[in-house]
Amino acid sequence: MTPEHPLLAAPPRVVNVGLELFAETLAALRVPVVHVAWRPPAASAHALALLARLDARREAVERANAVAFDRLTGGEPALVDCRPAREALELPERTVLHAGPPLAWERMCEPMRAAVRCAIRYEGWAANDDAAEDLVRRGAARLAPCHDWRAVGPMTGIVTASMPVLVVENRAHGTRAHATINEGLGKVLRFGATDDSVLARLRWLASEAGPLLGAALRAARGIELRPLIAQALRMGDELHQRNVAASSLLVRALMPHVARAGQRHNAVARLAEFMAGNDQFFLNVAMAAGKALADPAAGIPEATLVTAMARNGTDFGIRVSATGDRWFTAPVEMPTGLYFPGYGAGDANPDMGDSAIVETVGLGGGAMAASPAVARFVGAGGMADALAATEEIRDICHGEHPYFSIPAQDERGVPAGIDVRRVVETGITPLINTGIAGRQAGTGQIGAGVARAPLACFELALAALAG
Amino acid sequence: MTPEHPLLAAPPRVVNVGLELFAETLAALRVPVVHVAWRPPAASAHALALLARLDARREAVERANAVAFDRLTGGEPALVDCRPAREALELPERTVLHAGPPLAWERMCEPMRAAVRCAIRYEGWAANDDAAEDLVRRGAARLAPCHDWRAVGPMTGIVTASMPVLVVENRAHGTRAHATINEGLGKVLRFGATDDSVLARLRWLASEAGPLLGAALRAARGIELRPLIAQALRMGDELHQRNVAASSLLVRALMPHVARAGQRHNAVARLAEFMAGNDQFFLNVAMAAGKALADPAAGIPEATLVTAMARNGTDFGIRVSATGDRWFTAPVEMPTGLYFPGYGAGDANPDMGDSAIVETVGLGGGAMAASPAVARFVGAGGMADALAATEEIRDICHGEHPYFSIPAQDERGVPAGIDVRRVVETGITPLINTGIAGRQAGTGQIGAGVARAPLACFELALAALAG
Repeated sequence: MTPEHPLLAAPPRVVNVGLELFAETLAALRVPVVHVAWRPPAASAHALALLARLDARREAVERANAVAFDRLTGGEPALVDCRPAREALELPERTVLHAGPPLAWERMCEPMRAAVRCAIRYEGWAANDDAAEDLVRRGAARLAPCHDWRAVGPMTGIVTASMPVLVVENRAHGTRAHATINEGLGKVLRFGATDDSVLARLRWLASEAGPLLGAALRAARGIELRPLIAQALRMGDELHQRNVAASSLLVRALMPHVARAGQRHNAVARLAEFMAGNDQFFLNVAMAAGKALADPAAGIPEATLVTAMARNGTDFGIRVSATGDRWFTAPVEMPTGLYFPGYGAGDANPDMGDSAIVETVGLGGGAMAASPAVARFVGAGGMADALAATEEIRDICHGEHPYFSIPAQDERGVPAGIDVRRVVETGITPLINTGIAGRQAGTGQIGAGVARAPLACFELALAALAG
Repeated sequence: MTPEHPLLAAPPRVVNVGLELFAETLAALRVPVVHVAWRPPAASAHALALLARLDARREAVERANAVAFDRLTGGEPALVDCRPAREALELPERTVLHAGPPLAWERMCEPMRAAVRCAIRYEGWAANDDAAEDLVRRGAARLAPCHDWRAVGPMTGIVTASMPVLVVENRAHGTRAHATINEGLGKVLRFGATDDSVLARLRWLASEAGPLLGAALRAARGIELRPLIAQALRMGDELHQRNVAASSLLVRALMPHVARAGQRHNAVARLAEFMAGNDQFFLNVAMAAGKALADPAAGIPEATLVTAMARNGTDFGIRVSATGDRWFTAPVEMPTGLYFPGYGAGDANPDMGDSAIVETVGLGGGAMAASPAVARFVGAGGMADALAATEEIRDICHGEHPYFSIPAQDERGVPAGIDVRRVVETGITPLINTGIAGRQAGTGQIGAGVARAPLACFELALAALAG
């Protein structure tokens, strides 16, 4: 026999770097292999230069991010009240709040325009849609983002003065954030539906449900939301697509106070029925909690963590801690997902709503591993896809949430504190679980799925941070 | 070089049978290894002979088990009413139902005796504990198992005529099963506590909560429990130790009807508060559902599937399909678990209660993989222990439940249909999640944990089946 080269005397031992496929093929052939997860930086030369500039101040940035992360994850949100926006936000008449970064009427998508017109009719500021649009066009009714008014709104995100808003107080920081009451499924204003049933529900929310919820919440001296959200994560919610556990826990905690506060039996029963029929009742509470948690993390010099993500159906915008209220925007992407019968991708409106505030604080897309049922929107579904979605988001986050954890990962915290630097470096953009609105005004919801935050927002933010 | 024996020319390829430890050691050394899960039959020579005798009729047994399995898993339980036991069960006065197989006063454990005396005082059949005990000893008050009266009771399982019972109807089979309203935590009759607070709660349940629940359930035309239980399994409940999801879902569905049925505001509020404060409210509903599901699987000739498991604090008893109402009993085991501060294993009463009916239908211990939070009672806890507990139970079950599934196992059904033959053959006994009562009368609950069904029950049943 020919003497062998010593390297060939033993079976090969393989270290694989990068593409997992090679390692998997070798493993399938029973060749021992060690896989090293690595991918080349995705960033452009320009972005790498910006990252290098930030890296020169690395210690200061890390210190600032640690403070921002503590504020983002350490808040104590409590649902304390429900009052008309004119009282809670001191929102003036003839002002219409909408989701996402600021947007002129001319650039608004159709569902949002329809919702604006409908809200103006609902408030009685105009008698019909034409008159309503005229008010906006000549500036007699003002448009403004919810975020500028300590509020967040799902999908179109419309808020006007007489609409009741849920009030969430961050008891650790003294800040408050607000969101309207979730209207339920079907024809609803937030998806741009505008028929009589929408108006009738808005009137009932303002005249009966809102005041009753407010009285119950004040009597309860607030409902602590951090333990409730933590519990719901253990029950299969990721708090964006799926809120059935959180909604049920909230209803159970709230009903004794609703029953006591109710002046009329039927009002109590109607509110109980409304909440029993709406698995997403908690979504708007989670959103207000998200803003109440995220706001105290804003305005920390050098901190590169994201403090808001929001979409208006035209633009996607992010805010970053160090740059305060400034929006970094880019054209919003199309969601992908599953559609109700009779609808498809061609009917979908671009991504919309302030609900990405829940992803900003570590819930939603990044918490998918808590919610395998939701994972069918990102792939074949099931536990493996759910875990993979969460693991990917870990790559762009500052750390693990100290209070929100995932039972299927042995109570490991959800990834939290999206770092603009890591997003640009890896090319991994935040994953956002979302409802999908029809692009035709008046259609309403046509499906649900996921969307990605556009990389360009983070590149713009990075330039400002490195600047 | 010396020519090698051809067997040694290649690296070794190992097939390991039995103890996993060998395979793990080799795998750690990066030696390719195929592991075959196998263990030697645990059964005695006598038991093997009985198994062989049954094996001669194997086809008939398998056919019968397929029918029993379909009945056990195919039921449609609905919570339809809540009425006093004297109406729902036609339970006469001076009769005290208890958990587990039949048991004379002389062999009863102290917490159960205390609960019997307390129930007699509560009913006004005797003025004090001595007089109550005297009634029982001279046969003027009768003792009987809940299971003989279409009922199941947790822990001591006491039911008397004026206590309201939840009524679950199996709409697929027309059978009904019943359980009292769960009293909550702390000092409660089911754990053998007997002070004035226990009596006051029983009176409130009978005078206000029970009638209100009954009116609400009748107005709702029943609440379907199969989808509710399936949903709760997706939310981290295993429906024995953990019922927070099922309780919350039930409350949410029920409250509109409670609010409408309520004659007085404060009664609605008190019931809402009681349910909001009791994460185990659903346990008794799950138990009644378990019995309503299991009963139709009884009495099928040749079928070797278990149709009831129950403990009275002295004996553990099982019933098997082919042998109908006959109990196979053995001394009950001690539970192991975690204790409340100030208590330990030495303070524990032996395993007790009809609640093992939930394990009989595939929930509880065998569904642990749905509920990693509960797995801390069986080991270090976490997902791996939870999965292992469920996988072990699969070895002794006829099949996978068609409606109750586990999200973390990609919706694989929970194991269901415990087969007496497999239990004896493998030596794996059903795992039962349980509360732990103090053995001193009046103590109440001191912890929670797990217990095993004694193998001897299954050996006795096997002898009868093979006979």
